[in-house]
Amino acid sequence: MEKILRVNMTRLQISQAEVPSEYKFLGGRGLTSRMLLDEVDPRCEALGPDNKVILAPGLLTGTVVPCSGRLSIGAKSPLTGAIKESNVGGTAAQALTRLGIKALVIEGMPQSDNQYLLRLDREGAALVPAPELADMGNYRLAETLLAKYGPDNSIISIGPAGEQQLPVASVAVTNIEGQPSRHAGRGGMGAVLGSKGIKAVVVSSKGDFKKQPVRSEAFREVAQGFGKNLVASKKALTNYGTAVLVNLINNVGGLPTNNFSQGTFAGVESLSGEKLAAICQERGGATGHACHRGCVIRCSNIYHDAQGSYLTSGLEYETIALMGSNLGIAGLDQVAAMDRICDDLGLDTMEMGAALGVAMEGGVLSFGDAGGAQRLLVETAEGKTVLGRVLGQGATVTGKVLNVLRVPAVKGQGMSAYDPRALKGTGVTYATSTMGSDHTAGNALPGRGKVELRKPEGQVQLSLSLQVMSSVCDILGICIFVGPVEESMVVCAELLSAFSGERWGQEEVLALGRNLLKTEVEFNSKAGIGPVYNDVPEFMRKEALPGTDLVFDVDRDELENIFRGL
Amino acid sequence: MEKILRVNMTRLQISQAEVPSEYKFLGGRGLTSRMLLDEVDPRCEALGPDNKVILAPGLLTGTVVPCSGRLSIGAKSPLTGAIKESNVGGTAAQALTRLGIKALVIEGMPQSDNQYLLRLDREGAALVPAPELADMGNYRLAETLLAKYGPDNSIISIGPAGEQQLPVASVAVTNIEGQPSRHAGRGGMGAVLGSKGIKAVVVSSKGDFKKQPVRSEAFREVAQGFGKNLVASKKALTNYGTAVLVNLINNVGGLPTNNFSQGTFAGVESLSGEKLAAICQERGGATGHACHRGCVIRCSNIYHDAQGSYLTSGLEYETIALMGSNLGIAGLDQVAAMDRICDDLGLDTMEMGAALGVAMEGGVLSFGDAGGAQRLLVETAEGKTVLGRVLGQGATVTGKVLNVLRVPAVKGQGMSAYDPRALKGTGVTYATSTMGSDHTAGNALPGRGKVELRKPEGQVQLSLSLQVMSSVCDILGICIFVGPVEESMVVCAELLSAFSGERWGQEEVLALGRNLLKTEVEFNSKAGIGPVYNDVPEFMRKEALPGTDLVFDVDRDELENIFRGL
Repeated sequence: MEKILRVNMTRLQISQAEVPSEYKFLGGRGLTSRMLLDEVDPRCEALGPDNKVILAPGLLTGTVVPCSGRLSIGAKSPLTGAIKESNVGGTAAQALTRLGIKALVIEGMPQSDNQYLLRLDREGAALVPAPELADMGNYRLAETLLAKYGPDNSIISIGPAGEQQLPVASVAVTNIEGQPSRHAGRGGMGAVLGSKGIKAVVVSSKGDFKKQPVRSEAFREVAQGFGKNLVASKKALTNYGTAVLVNLINNVGGLPTNNFSQGTFAGVESLSGEKLAAICQERGGATGHACHRGCVIRCSNIYHDAQGSYLTSGLEYETIALMGSNLGIAGLDQVAAMDRICDDLGLDTMEMGAALGVAMEGGVLSFGDAGGAQRLLVETAEGKTVLGRVLGQGATVTGKVLNVLRVPAVKGQGMSAYDPRALKGTGVTYATSTMGSDHTAGNALPGRGKVELRKPEGQVQLSLSLQVMSSVCDILGICIFVGPVEESMVVCAELLSAFSGERWGQEEVLALGRNLLKTEVEFNSKAGIGPVYNDVPEFMRKEALPGTDLVFDVDRDELENIFRGL
Repeated sequence: MEKILRVNMTRLQISQAEVPSEYKFLGGRGLTSRMLLDEVDPRCEALGPDNKVILAPGLLTGTVVPCSGRLSIGAKSPLTGAIKESNVGGTAAQALTRLGIKALVIEGMPQSDNQYLLRLDREGAALVPAPELADMGNYRLAETLLAKYGPDNSIISIGPAGEQQLPVASVAVTNIEGQPSRHAGRGGMGAVLGSKGIKAVVVSSKGDFKKQPVRSEAFREVAQGFGKNLVASKKALTNYGTAVLVNLINNVGGLPTNNFSQGTFAGVESLSGEKLAAICQERGGATGHACHRGCVIRCSNIYHDAQGSYLTSGLEYETIALMGSNLGIAGLDQVAAMDRICDDLGLDTMEMGAALGVAMEGGVLSFGDAGGAQRLLVETAEGKTVLGRVLGQGATVTGKVLNVLRVPAVKGQGMSAYDPRALKGTGVTYATSTMGSDHTAGNALPGRGKVELRKPEGQVQLSLSLQVMSSVCDILGICIFVGPVEESMVVCAELLSAFSGERWGQEEVLALGRNLLKTEVEFNSKAGIGPVYNDVPEFMRKEALPGTDLVFDVDRDELENIFRGL
C-alpha cells in the first residue's frame, strides 16, 4: 500500500496516511504542486513555518519504464515567491518508491537551530539529531552516511548553502556510485529544507513495495519498445551529454556570453561537447553514464581532473554555458571545478552562473576570472559575508544591490542557458512558466516544432504545447530527455492504459499536464504572481544581440494570456 | 498661463506645453499619479529610461490657504515597484507655482553619468552640466547654490544616496532659512532623480504667476477662518512638534522598539516631545517653526547641539521612533545627529530606521549602538560597500539578505512609527495603501474616529475614509496636519467652490480622493501589485506584542477588498 509520510518539524513527529483517491493518478510535480495548493497558504513566508517541502517520485517511477527515476521536490520558492518544483535524477526516487512512499512531506519548523537526519527504511521512519553533520559538504556527507548506513542507501542532502537558507541552495541526490552529483537545483529547495532543519534523508533501497501494472505484460512491451527507440534516437546525448548543445546553441547565436551581453563566445571550442567527451576519455572518466538504473539515454558523464582523479559528475550544458561563456571563462577544467564546488556546497549552478554574471557586470570581479568566481562560490555557500549572502539571493537581488539593470531573470529566477532573443520559444517559456525562467518547463530547442527560432510568430503556441508535455513527463517521473513530443505522449497513453487497466488516450494524458499548469497558475495567482509577471527583462526587448537585430519581440498580451485557454 | 514643463534627459531638451483640460482640477499627488498612469508603463524598470519623475505643487499651493505649500514628487518606485508619491514642505512648491509650473516632468536618461543642474526662473528653464556638485551633501550643496544664485531661490536636490540610485534615497527641499531639511523621503524618489542625472533644481521664487480664485473675496474669507481654527486647535503640534506623539504612542503600546519586537520603550522619556521642546529652548533652537510661508501650525523645530550650534531641523516623531526606540537608542541628541546625516546625504529616515532595525536583529550591530548606526548611515549613502548597498535597498532586501523574518514592511516599504498590532487602523492603511506601508496615506491616530484602536472591527472602513480624505489633502497641496477629517472636507468644498466659481459639495471633494486612489490602484494592478499584497508581514499576525495578546487580526479578505467599492 502506498502512503504519504509526514514529518512535522515543530513537534518532531512522524505520521503516515493513505493516499487520498484524488491523488491516485498524480505523481512527481503533479503531486507536489497539487499538495502545495491544497495545504500551503500561497502568501506564507517561504522560509517560515507555514511552508512545506514535498518530495514525490514520479507516477511511473519504480516501474520498468526507461528513464523514469525522477524525484520531484516542491515548495513555495524563497527565490521567486511562487510555486516551485525542481526534479532530479539519481537513485532516491526509486528507493522511496520501494518503501511505498508516494510523497514525503516535511512541514513546520524546529524551535532550535538543530540539524536532523531523517532515516527511512523498511522498519519505518526516524528523526535523528545530527549536530555532527553541520556545515558538512555533500561529498563528505554522502561518504560518511553511506559508510555508516551502508551502500544500499540513497542520500538526499543539503550543503552549507542550504543550512544558510540561501535561495540559491540546491538539494543533492546520490547517483549509482554514491556521489551527491545530481541536484534539484532550482528555486532554493535546499533553503526550504534547511529552514526545516533537515540536513539529510537516508533512504534505504531495500524496500519491498512494487508498483503493479494492471496489464503487466502489455506494460512491459510498451516500455521495452520505448526504450529501444530512445537508445537509437538519443545517441548524441549518450556520446556527448547535454554539452552537445554548446556548439549548437552558439551556432544559432543564443549562447549566453558575458552576462547575456552576447550570444556567441569566442572560446566556444574549449567548452564543447566534443571537447568534453575527449577529456573524459583521455583521463579515465566517462560519457554515456547513467544517473540511475533503467536510464537508457545515459546523458551523464564522469569528469576527471588533469591528474586523472574524479572531480565531478554530470557536467551539464547549462552549467558549462552559465559558468563558462556567461562568465567569459574558456575551459572545461575551470567550469568542472566550479561545478564540483556547487555540488559539494549545495548551490544551483544555473542561479550562481547568472548571479556571478551580474556581479561581474557590477564590477565585483572581471569577466574571465575563474579563480575569483570559485572563491565567490565558496564565500556564497558559507553565507558569512554580506557579499556572499547577496549572491546567495540569486541574480535578481544581486542586480538590485549592485544597480545592474542587465539581469537575465524572470519572476526572480535566473535564466538558464538559452538567450531568449535567439531562441524565442524558450524565451516564451522563461517569460510565462509558473516556475520563473526555467528551460525544463518547456525548451524549444532548434528543430523542435516547425516554428522559426528567431521569429516571434507561433512561439506562444509552441511553448504552451511544450509546457503541457513537459508537465506530463514531470508527473510520470520520466526524464524530459525522452522528449516532450507527440510521439512520447502516445507512448505515455499506452503506458498509462496498461498501468491502470483503464483507457487513456492522448487527450487524457495532455489533460494531466494542463491540469497541473492550472494548479500552479492558481497557486501563483494567490501568491500575487499573476500574468503581469509574464515577460522577459526590459533589456532583452531593447538591446539587440551584438551583430544582429534580434531583440525579444513576442507580444506581451500573448504572454499574459498564454494560460487562458487551458 | 500655467504650463507643464518637460525635461528630456536622453536628448537634454526642455519643452513646455499647456495644461490639458482634464488635469485642470488636479494638483499634487492627484496630478503626479494621473500623469504616471497616462505616461509611464507600470512594468518598466524603475531606474531605467522609461520611468519619469513628476513634481507638482498642490492645486491650492500659492494661494492664501494656510498650510498649502506641499510639493508632490511622484514616480514608479524602485523600492516597491508600485506607484509612488512623496510630498514635502519647504519653499519649492510655492516657487514653482509662481513660475506657473503646474508639473515638472523629468524623463528619459542621459547617456553618461554626468550630473546636471536644472535652473528655473522667469527667463525660462536651462540644463547646466554640474560635475562640480557630484558627491556633495545637501547642506553644502544648498549653501553653494544659494550663494551662487541668491537667497531668493529654492533648492530641490539629492545627496550622494540619490546619486548612487539607492531606493532609500530622498529628495531634499530647502526651508525658509535655506536649509535642505525638508525631505520627500519615501519610496526612493531621490534614486529616480539620480538615475536621470539631476543633482539639483534651482527654482527662483521671483516668478509673477498667481493663481486667481474666481470669487477671491469669498476664498480669502474661508481661508482666514480655516487658519484661525488651525491656530487654535493645533497648539500641541506648535509647541512640541510631531514629537508630541512619542509619549502618546508609547502609552497605547505601539511605539516601535528594538525592530518592532516591543511596543513600549523603557527610555521613552529621553525621546519625548516635552524633552525636545526643552532642549530646543535651552540651546537657542526653536519649536513652532514653519517650514514654508503661510503655515499656521508650525510643527517644525530647529534643533541645536549641546554647544548651541545648529544641528538639524524638523526632527519628527517618525525619525525619533524609528531611529530611537526602534534601534534601542535613548537620547534625542543621538537621533538628531542621525537625522542630520540623513538630511545631508539624502536618506529617508524612516526606511533607514526600519532597515537598521532589521540589520541589528540580523547581528550586523547591537541594539542601542548609536555610533555604529551613524557610521552605517554614512556607509549606506556612499554606496561603496556591499553592506551599504544592501541597507540602501531598504528593510525588505536587508531582511532577505540577512535571513531575518521580522521585517516591518509592506509591498517592499518599511513601516513608519506605529505598530499595527496596537494601532489597527493605521495597520490597515499600511497593509492596503497603494504606496506601501505609509502612515501619511491615512493615519488612524488615537482619538481619530469612534473605532477602538486595538480591535479589528471597523478599522477597514476607518482607514478607507482616512485614505480618501488624505488623498484630497495631497491633491490640494494641504499638509495632512490640517486633518483628514470631515470638517476639513467641508472647508475644502468651500475653498474649491470659491476658487473655481463652480459649486463643489463635500461629495465632489471626496470623489477627487476616491478617483486618485482608483488611478493608483490601476497603476499598481498593471505593475503586478494587486490586492494579494494588502497585508502586514506574517510575524505581526503570529507574534503578540510582549505583555499583551495583541496581534494584527484584521480580516485578510477585507484588506483585499478595501478598494472594491470606490
